[in-house]
Amino acid sequence: MRSRSAEASARKVELGDLTPPPDEFLGRAAYLELALFEDLSRVVSIAPTTDAKERLSRSASLALAKHHALTALLERRGVDPAEAMSPFAPAIDDFQRRTLGSNWPESLMTCYVTAGFLDDFLARLAAGLPGDLADRARQALESDTGQERLAEMLAAQIAANPRTASRLALWGRRLVGDTMLVARQALAASVDRSRTEERIEPVMTDLISAHSRRMDKLGLTA
Amino acid sequence: MRSRSAEASARKVELGDLTPPPDEFLGRAAYLELALFEDLSRVVSIAPTTDAKERLSRSASLALAKHHALTALLERRGVDPAEAMSPFAPAIDDFQRRTLGSNWPESLMTCYVTAGFLDDFLARLAAGLPGDLADRARQALESDTGQERLAEMLAAQIAANPRTASRLALWGRRLVGDTMLVARQALAASVDRSRTEERIEPVMTDLISAHSRRMDKLGLTA
Repeated sequence: MRSRSAEASARKVELGDLTPPPDEFLGRAAYLELALFEDLSRVVSIAPTTDAKERLSRSASLALAKHHALTALLERRGVDPAEAMSPFAPAIDDFQRRTLGSNWPESLMTCYVTAGFLDDFLARLAAGLPGDLADRARQALESDTGQERLAEMLAAQIAANPRTASRLALWGRRLVGDTMLVARQALAASVDRSRTEERIEPVMTDLISAHSRRMDKLGLTA
Repeated sequence: MRSRSAEASARKVELGDLTPPPDEFLGRAAYLELALFEDLSRVVSIAPTTDAKERLSRSASLALAKHHALTALLERRGVDPAEAMSPFAPAIDDFQRRTLGSNWPESLMTCYVTAGFLDDFLARLAAGLPGDLADRARQALESDTGQERLAEMLAAQIAANPRTASRLALWGRRLVGDTMLVARQALAASVDRSRTEERIEPVMTDLISAHSRRMDKLGLTA
């Protein structure tokens, strides 16, 4: 299992040369993961059944652990997590508002699509961190947050009410647009913009393929 | 430390003879703790500063761990947690709506007052569970969920804006009324109502004293 996932990581296009300074990377990633936890805990609150609540609460717990793994890395560096996160709060709060969803299935879709994309993106960007921080941050970001469970619940939702499929497919497309924007904000500012674009393009292609596979799993077109 | 807390427990008036059957007790307690987690994660979401968010997320994590400790006890008995919780969802959802609060300090107060009261109440009621379940459930319910942190944040809130004090004191009184109602619903139905009242009275007196001490800590009158 381990060597297989190591191989998979090796095949991935990495973004190491666009990684911002460590405290900036960790502050932003920690706040993003906190936002993903908030989304998930909201989905727990509005879940239509006790069973859904119970299963989603496991994912919320894992998402919060991911946030705390990142704040622990900041603390090891002697940095106050709240201070490190603060500069990124306005943009991420705004992203969160735009991706809230107008009902439970949409909000569930948000958790599935945005967390899948951002964890993958941030794990690649972590490759450019100095020393053992690269591995520690990547491991934290790649830890499971019950994405399979979210996919199952979404698939069940679509099966029970096939008319939601096209609305959810549309919502998925909008989500991936907003998510790409918030991901791009996490890249180090570079003098040479066209060079940056060149570097990012294959990564975005890769991440969009992963997104399409996630949508396929639900029987939806990305 | 251990013997001291054992002494403290011994001094407490217990409710063992009014404990409902184990699956009923655990199902209701697990759902209540899930609701307390939801309240707390909402307070994380609407927190005015990144620092408050960060500190409250620790409490949310502990509250969710408390819920999962109780569902683990159900699973050990071969009971599906979602099924065990379902019957109690409507009444507890209703309690949650009534105690939501209309702004961040009120919602923070809700977490402080309702969790403090209900954990204490349920830990006493756990004494009537059979075998080692009594101790296990009590330990789960008495585990720390960062109440001190909530008290500090509320006190800071009141210090920064003294005019909120009277509104929060009023809100605290309303909360304790609603919380007592939801607590009473957790008692085993008894044929002899007046005997039940006689048993509960000293416990409620005790719990209300604990509530007053919690309010004192904030400089508020219960």
